Amino acid sequence: MKEKDFLMIPGPTPVPESVLLAIAKHPIGHRSKEFSKIFMSATEKLQWLAQTKNEVYIYTASGTGAMEGAISNLINPGDKVLSLVIGVFGQRFADVAKIYGADTTILKAEPGKAIQAEDLKEALKKDTYKYVTITHSETSTGTANDIYKLIPIIKEHGALVILDAVTSLGCMPLEMDALGIDVVVSGSQKGFMLPPGLSFIYVSADALKAKENCKTPSYYFCWNQARKALKDSTTPWTPNVSFIVGLELALNKMQEEGLEKIYSRHARLRDTLRAGLRDLGLKLLCADKDASCAITAIYPPENISVPDIRKTIKEDWGITVANGQKELQDKIFRMGHLGFVSDRDILMGLASLEKTLVKLGHKIPVKDCV
Amino acid sequence: MKEKDFLMIPGPTPVPESVLLAIAKHPIGHRSKEFSKIFMSATEKLQWLAQTKNEVYIYTASGTGAMEGAISNLINPGDKVLSLVIGVFGQRFADVAKIYGADTTILKAEPGKAIQAEDLKEALKKDTYKYVTITHSETSTGTANDIYKLIPIIKEHGALVILDAVTSLGCMPLEMDALGIDVVVSGSQKGFMLPPGLSFIYVSADALKAKENCKTPSYYFCWNQARKALKDSTTPWTPNVSFIVGLELALNKMQEEGLEKIYSRHARLRDTLRAGLRDLGLKLLCADKDASCAITAIYPPENISVPDIRKTIKEDWGITVANGQKELQDKIFRMGHLGFVSDRDILMGLASLEKTLVKLGHKIPVKDCV
Repeated sequence: MKEKDFLMIPGPTPVPESVLLAIAKHPIGHRSKEFSKIFMSATEKLQWLAQTKNEVYIYTASGTGAMEGAISNLINPGDKVLSLVIGVFGQRFADVAKIYGADTTILKAEPGKAIQAEDLKEALKKDTYKYVTITHSETSTGTANDIYKLIPIIKEHGALVILDAVTSLGCMPLEMDALGIDVVVSGSQKGFMLPPGLSFIYVSADALKAKENCKTPSYYFCWNQARKALKDSTTPWTPNVSFIVGLELALNKMQEEGLEKIYSRHARLRDTLRAGLRDLGLKLLCADKDASCAITAIYPPENISVPDIRKTIKEDWGITVANGQKELQDKIFRMGHLGFVSDRDILMGLASLEKTLVKLGHKIPVKDCV
Repeated sequence: MKEKDFLMIPGPTPVPESVLLAIAKHPIGHRSKEFSKIFMSATEKLQWLAQTKNEVYIYTASGTGAMEGAISNLINPGDKVLSLVIGVFGQRFADVAKIYGADTTILKAEPGKAIQAEDLKEALKKDTYKYVTITHSETSTGTANDIYKLIPIIKEHGALVILDAVTSLGCMPLEMDALGIDVVVSGSQKGFMLPPGLSFIYVSADALKAKENCKTPSYYFCWNQARKALKDSTTPWTPNVSFIVGLELALNKMQEEGLEKIYSRHARLRDTLRAGLRDLGLKLLCADKDASCAITAIYPPENISVPDIRKTIKEDWGITVANGQKELQDKIFRMGHLGFVSDRDILMGLASLEKTLVKLGHKIPVKDCV
């Protein structure tokens, strides 16, 4: 029954059968009119998804490739960068900026906490930053930064905003133009209902202007190459045509559902899961107000280990949940609920987790009937 | 009848139905034992394909990404690089090296000609090069460099050899260890019977040593990241798990066929096509001795344009052939015959081209029966 296995990790995420079958079609030529039409349709729909008129470049790469592309197109050695770090992926942005010679300052919140507006204001007072990197939904902790509060503060400071929206785009409200975000990065295996294989970089006019003054070498992820090809309705290098066909179909489905329903579904999945987890007597890493709509981080009950939970729920119920990362490894486990996920999947996940915990000796708290 | 369309371009190339269906399976978790097993099996089979014990890194990227990765992990500004250029892709290697600050010298052959051993010896006498970039099969012209002649000359000079094997690996003999090649780059949509989406970098011990002294920033394509993950039987970033599953299956098929049969099939496809093209009265860009086993470049008959040939063979017969690139655009057309291609496909391509040319007014030369 291997084929019944179900992923509740923060990517890869479930993929609709119609998208899988679209991907399985024979690849078409990437310099054909047929491909250009699909490619431009996908590009326009990506703009819709982030509510922007800015250009977006589709890369055959993992999300980390797009993160590097966001840095390598902008940062000259010595540029002052403030990196807001609330977990592994926020740290990754800081690491990449440092590798490219940025003078990086880190503003950190402890695991499970979001960056507070007051702390950001304080940090920005101490220096003049050219760029601020910020994670929308931190995959390693399931914590979301409130970009509607934080980004206006950064804009007031005058820095360009580079946003990691890898697990948030298509799950949580993100209006690139209304917020004035300069660079948005995302990946296909998250809210997009696709397997991993593509990533996306959205670029504002200000970011393109900054790019002109960037001397850092880049080629594959170079925006100038992508821009030039985009004018010809194509990509500079042979792309994953199969996945771009799948992307266009998945984005059609997202347009049919509509942004409002997509966001409310993800919020509902999160809330249902969190309520159910608490009913099982489990503690959650983040407070409700900071909880990502894409992923939830959970402490194991005392005396039950994370590896035992992951092993049992996989073996008995065919569900994969993620471990914590780095210093949170074996301290938390994470359940993904983004993309092609329905309310029923959450019930199923909770029921399987309940059976798993009971088997491992956990006592479910008894609640009075209402 | 769109689904009957057939690609005879140098990538994307035809993909076996079983590989397409493997790709269409639900993605598995990239941090699972199941994935690691498939990933390591694919890695070992990639080593077999290039006849090497060297490490090979699988990237979610186009071939150009791997080309950049070959440069950005090695070259410090000012490093002396000799680039052997016999077409667009040889020039691309030189361009990328230059972007990364290399002191690049170009040894060029005119379109359709390979680099001659004597010219290479002369070029190497003029300076001491740290790296030499070389194209095995030049996609833009269908010309193959004789790596068994040229590489020993470069090794004698003492430079590290960086080989673009994008359209040659899995089509033409390439023994990385026997030849002492330091870096080999390839891509999934060529001899591998997969769609575009993955690329590969093979790295020798000497290349890894040179990497230690390279100060150029890199992250996504950084070999150190790939090496570290490989020790844990995985990739550093979320890879295209679906395509790695497909890759492992395709490599199984290649092992079943065996290297000798794969090479003789590709040589036979090339020879059959070239003989048939000449029977149609067409002139070929390359001499037989320089002809790639992967792709053939053809001059159109006088008074018939390349766009007309491409349009007619597509509309009437559902076959896509490629135009020339850059200065060869509209001067030649190119037919790919690499990967999942059988003898029957060549007959079909020739018959369709014959019908196309006759429709466009070409007179097929009459031959006496033997």
